[in-house]
Amino acid sequence: MVSFVCFGVPQSFISKKEPTRTRPIPATAYDMRMSVETPELAFDEERLLPAIAQDSTTQEVLMLAYVSEEAFERTRETGVAHYYSRSRYELWKKGGSSGHVQHVEEVRVDCDGDAILYLVEQVGGACHTGYESCFYRTADGEEVSKQVFDPDDVY
Amino acid sequence: MVSFVCFGVPQSFISKKEPTRTRPIPATAYDMRMSVETPELAFDEERLLPAIAQDSTTQEVLMLAYVSEEAFERTRETGVAHYYSRSRYELWKKGGSSGHVQHVEEVRVDCDGDAILYLVEQVGGACHTGYESCFYRTADGEEVSKQVFDPDDVY
Repeated sequence: MVSFVCFGVPQSFISKKEPTRTRPIPATAYDMRMSVETPELAFDEERLLPAIAQDSTTQEVLMLAYVSEEAFERTRETGVAHYYSRSRYELWKKGGSSGHVQHVEEVRVDCDGDAILYLVEQVGGACHTGYESCFYRTADGEEVSKQVFDPDDVY
Repeated sequence: MVSFVCFGVPQSFISKKEPTRTRPIPATAYDMRMSVETPELAFDEERLLPAIAQDSTTQEVLMLAYVSEEAFERTRETGVAHYYSRSRYELWKKGGSSGHVQHVEEVRVDCDGDAILYLVEQVGGACHTGYESCFYRTADGEEVSKQVFDPDDVY
């Protein structure tokens, strides 16, 4: 096994929004949330973090990919999901070629800071196979997600 | 970057259930599902796969951990989530000490076979911090999950 090296991320990097305390406080569910400590991200030895994308409407888990610091930052800046392609070794804007972008409504960080969750509005389908979700099969080979586009038409 | 080596898993390993075609076909949603190819698992160079646990009732994403072949097999055999602890280097039955086990209702595999999804009934809370979900914070440090137990009482 490999020992994982954690890279701390400056507070200024992971907190792009104006702090709640300096804004007027509208009585919305969002702003009624408790404030806890601002999480730091613990990138692995490849300087990546696993990122789960979940559909914010259907709650379906759509995919798991990886983010670099740059991908995380671009997501936060643009509101559109970016990842790091481990096969092409480059920043990857999801939907850049297919148009099937993910509008990121919220980014969550887990307890150890070594995984993140994007809550997204998915345009088209998340999976390159044409399914809404990359998790379209059970381990027994039963289909549990809809095919929403023909990959031959898109790629 | 590291090149990932994939380890194929025998069909007998990932398909524990009797094939649908040899059973009577009750008219339930489960059995009306389409059958697709039985997925193979692509373990990484550490012989692990990331595994997402999602609450099957609330649809909340609870945690991300890793499974070895043994952990995956034990989960399938027992119906209770097992993972591989990357800090203790051992098979880890979730809830083994806390009692906060995860009853696994379904296992899904992603398109590339390099990530899995457990749909679970979570006893207690998933997170060692006492929260229902390990993803209890946004990247801005706002609390978005309930604390359901006091970790000092459990660990």
